[in-house]
Amino acid sequence: MIHAYAAQEPGGTLSPFSYDPGPLGEDEVDIKVDYCGICHSDLSMLDNEWGMTTYPFVPGHEVIGTVYETGRRVTHLSTGQRVGLGWFSHSCMTCHSCMSGDHNLYASAEGTIVGRHGGFSDRVRAHSEWVIPLPEKLNPESAGPLFCGGVTVFNPIVQFGIKPTDRVGVIGIGGLGHMAIRFLRAWGCEVTAFSHSSTKCDEAKSMGATHFVDSRDARILEGLAGSFDFVLSTVNKSMDWDAYIATLKPRGRLHLVGAVLDPVSFGLFPMLLGQKSLSSSPLGSPATTSSMLDFAARHAIEPKIEMFDIKDVNEAMSRLREGKAHYRLVLKL
Amino acid sequence: MIHAYAAQEPGGTLSPFSYDPGPLGEDEVDIKVDYCGICHSDLSMLDNEWGMTTYPFVPGHEVIGTVYETGRRVTHLSTGQRVGLGWFSHSCMTCHSCMSGDHNLYASAEGTIVGRHGGFSDRVRAHSEWVIPLPEKLNPESAGPLFCGGVTVFNPIVQFGIKPTDRVGVIGIGGLGHMAIRFLRAWGCEVTAFSHSSTKCDEAKSMGATHFVDSRDARILEGLAGSFDFVLSTVNKSMDWDAYIATLKPRGRLHLVGAVLDPVSFGLFPMLLGQKSLSSSPLGSPATTSSMLDFAARHAIEPKIEMFDIKDVNEAMSRLREGKAHYRLVLKL
Repeated sequence: MIHAYAAQEPGGTLSPFSYDPGPLGEDEVDIKVDYCGICHSDLSMLDNEWGMTTYPFVPGHEVIGTVYETGRRVTHLSTGQRVGLGWFSHSCMTCHSCMSGDHNLYASAEGTIVGRHGGFSDRVRAHSEWVIPLPEKLNPESAGPLFCGGVTVFNPIVQFGIKPTDRVGVIGIGGLGHMAIRFLRAWGCEVTAFSHSSTKCDEAKSMGATHFVDSRDARILEGLAGSFDFVLSTVNKSMDWDAYIATLKPRGRLHLVGAVLDPVSFGLFPMLLGQKSLSSSPLGSPATTSSMLDFAARHAIEPKIEMFDIKDVNEAMSRLREGKAHYRLVLKL
Repeated sequence: MIHAYAAQEPGGTLSPFSYDPGPLGEDEVDIKVDYCGICHSDLSMLDNEWGMTTYPFVPGHEVIGTVYETGRRVTHLSTGQRVGLGWFSHSCMTCHSCMSGDHNLYASAEGTIVGRHGGFSDRVRAHSEWVIPLPEKLNPESAGPLFCGGVTVFNPIVQFGIKPTDRVGVIGIGGLGHMAIRFLRAWGCEVTAFSHSSTKCDEAKSMGATHFVDSRDARILEGLAGSFDFVLSTVNKSMDWDAYIATLKPRGRLHLVGAVLDPVSFGLFPMLLGQKSLSSSPLGSPATTSSMLDFAARHAIEPKIEMFDIKDVNEAMSRLREGKAHYRLVLKL
């Protein structure tokens, strides 16, 4: 039996829940969970905000652990090996996207907590393609958030060919944004952090931001017209997209990784005149995740976390719900 | 003196107008105009729709002619040489965009009919960087529209790396769209034409479209979900952008070259899940224009035009205004 924490209803309290995972599939891996990050999408799923949650619901998709057991056909992972698991748990491995290395773009890829039980648990199961070895140099206590929030902000840097010579902006200095600043600084870019919390200025700079901009000040934004090759928005609410498109240089890109529910709306002309793009993306492929882990290890990039014991999981969820996480929360199993 | 046709007020009739262009600058070229296309932006400028028209206003920015006189420092063009001129007449040649080959993205690039007198005239003046030699194989009678409408749809194919293996869509089968279909077919792509005029089906296919879709049929659009690598919209009004974003494959791009004045609005999630982009662009650089002319000559791509004598310029403008142009109009000087 697997011992987990589950909610029985939308927004419900997490309480001990045991289940039998059944026989291990030949391409599957059971992971013994050591740490599991808490992501904002665990909350969204707990509340059934996206209408796809099934109950009992076990959150958790930023898993760090060791291989507990491998299916018959899994030959590239071995028992006891340190691994991580993120948002996805299974891709078909045969469609055009999967065959192109875009396993994260396969429309029917299965989520670790969508119709499955996640990592707030002593064990979690996934198909082997999404179980990624953790480099030895990475701290397992803090590495969990790299597997969801981390790869979400790292992936577009790779996908859209961001160059070390680029000037870039990061909107929002939170769970995603603080990792984006660190990655982009290590990438060689000049990084400007945008936040409506001016109290975060010093911390943003300590993470590697060259400049800090109070995003509530429209005049400062206007003064930055034509400044950036790439602006990455990590916030999940509507912003003045026109203002940020204006801050882009010709050929610039505004990329949104925050799950904005309102329509995205902007005037076309500034985009037309400057040959600009607006885009979005989900997480990253297994290969990109692996490249990110290697890059994070090389540059000692570590998410800033607060650690909770799994027994205090409800307290941790409340802290996240109240926007007090600083910057990612991790459960110790 | 230069003999042109000008309007004296917004929306005014074009009538004979003479002006002295003054001494030729050392980097400038005077072109003796043989043919000049009429573009929808000539109408927009005539009506001062964009608030930047000065009167008397001489339209015309799809010029085919011969070099009449060159400035002292112009060494790469010679008198009598067949050339063309499009939307732009001058770039600074020193800014980062110009030095990167993106002369069309230099924010202060001067338009041929913006604060200058255009090509509805026996002569027109431009800086030499925008005066592009015409390949001998191209028909000078019909080549004018390539210099504005043509490069507008050709440029994104180059800029965004559209591949011959791609499946693409073109929205709107008009002045821009019919050239887009021809270019993309010659590029090697499978081309689907979208139009609300089902009468255009046969003609779209004769131009190279493999498929024709009546864009008013929402169910057909739904059935095309995940079909295209690239959808190029050539219409200048708002469409159901969500529906077209849904027709894109993972990594797909919706590119708008029609000058849409309403805000562009869409839901983020389908874009996020598929790592899709939305973008826009203005015309093309001198180098891209030159590549386009070479490609058009190689593949015998010719805009479909109706020819008018310059004396009938007002009749031609009315035809364009009424949406009856089939597909581009050209004036013979």
